[in-house]
Amino acid sequence: MAGPSIFSRIVAGEIPCHRIYETDHVLAFLDINPLAEGHALVIPKRPVERLDELTPDEAAELGRAVREVAVRVMRVVGAPAYNVLQNNGSLAGQEVPHVHFHIIPRREGDGLGYRWRPQKVAPEVLAALAARIAGT
Amino acid sequence: MAGPSIFSRIVAGEIPCHRIYETDHVLAFLDINPLAEGHALVIPKRPVERLDELTPDEAAELGRAVREVAVRVMRVVGAPAYNVLQNNGSLAGQEVPHVHFHIIPRREGDGLGYRWRPQKVAPEVLAALAARIAGT
Repeated sequence: MAGPSIFSRIVAGEIPCHRIYETDHVLAFLDINPLAEGHALVIPKRPVERLDELTPDEAAELGRAVREVAVRVMRVVGAPAYNVLQNNGSLAGQEVPHVHFHIIPRREGDGLGYRWRPQKVAPEVLAALAARIAGT
Repeated sequence: MAGPSIFSRIVAGEIPCHRIYETDHVLAFLDINPLAEGHALVIPKRPVERLDELTPDEAAELGRAVREVAVRVMRVVGAPAYNVLQNNGSLAGQEVPHVHFHIIPRREGDGLGYRWRPQKVAPEVLAALAARIAGT
């Protein structure tokens, strides 16, 4: 659980935002330091720091909202592609300790994207790890 | 909508995978070229190319599953942070034309993460864009 962050103050209406979508439990607004035109944030209204701390129903409602906001953003900005990104923990790039999904429209040559450095891992190592995760 | 991809063949059981979680409509397995230990993929069983092409209910079920898989992966690998990433379109880094959420555990100094290049945008420009998206 997070304490009140800037997003709680936005939810409470104490700080204005560029609102684009809202339900009883979810709010979406434009990022004020966008990586691209239409860069949007989708958040639960309840202050929760990480995705895994949401209830299953909250995660479902957020998944539904992220799709809906993606449809609406992409219809208006007309970009050919987009990333959905959600960071958990400061080591993962999370700056506000309140769950938020980024929707980031992508265009050719924008220089954005995730740094992709795949590893070689033996199949038996993956199989053993999968068994541990599946068994929990 | 996508045609059959490698993920459809995994769902059909024609290609093996390191399965970690499954429901009637969702499958999760380890990425065979992981960016980090525990790098997992969560997909809808129905072959759909982009998040915005899912039905609202499918998006909700996927949101629920991504949270559940994140809980299970992080419990086992014990990393301090993680990214959730979902790419739509080849310009966004999507390599398999079937919706998939990456769960990527993060550790200090791993060199991963999203390239962050925020722009300066005037508030009135954001307000006008927000109004267009909210109004659609």
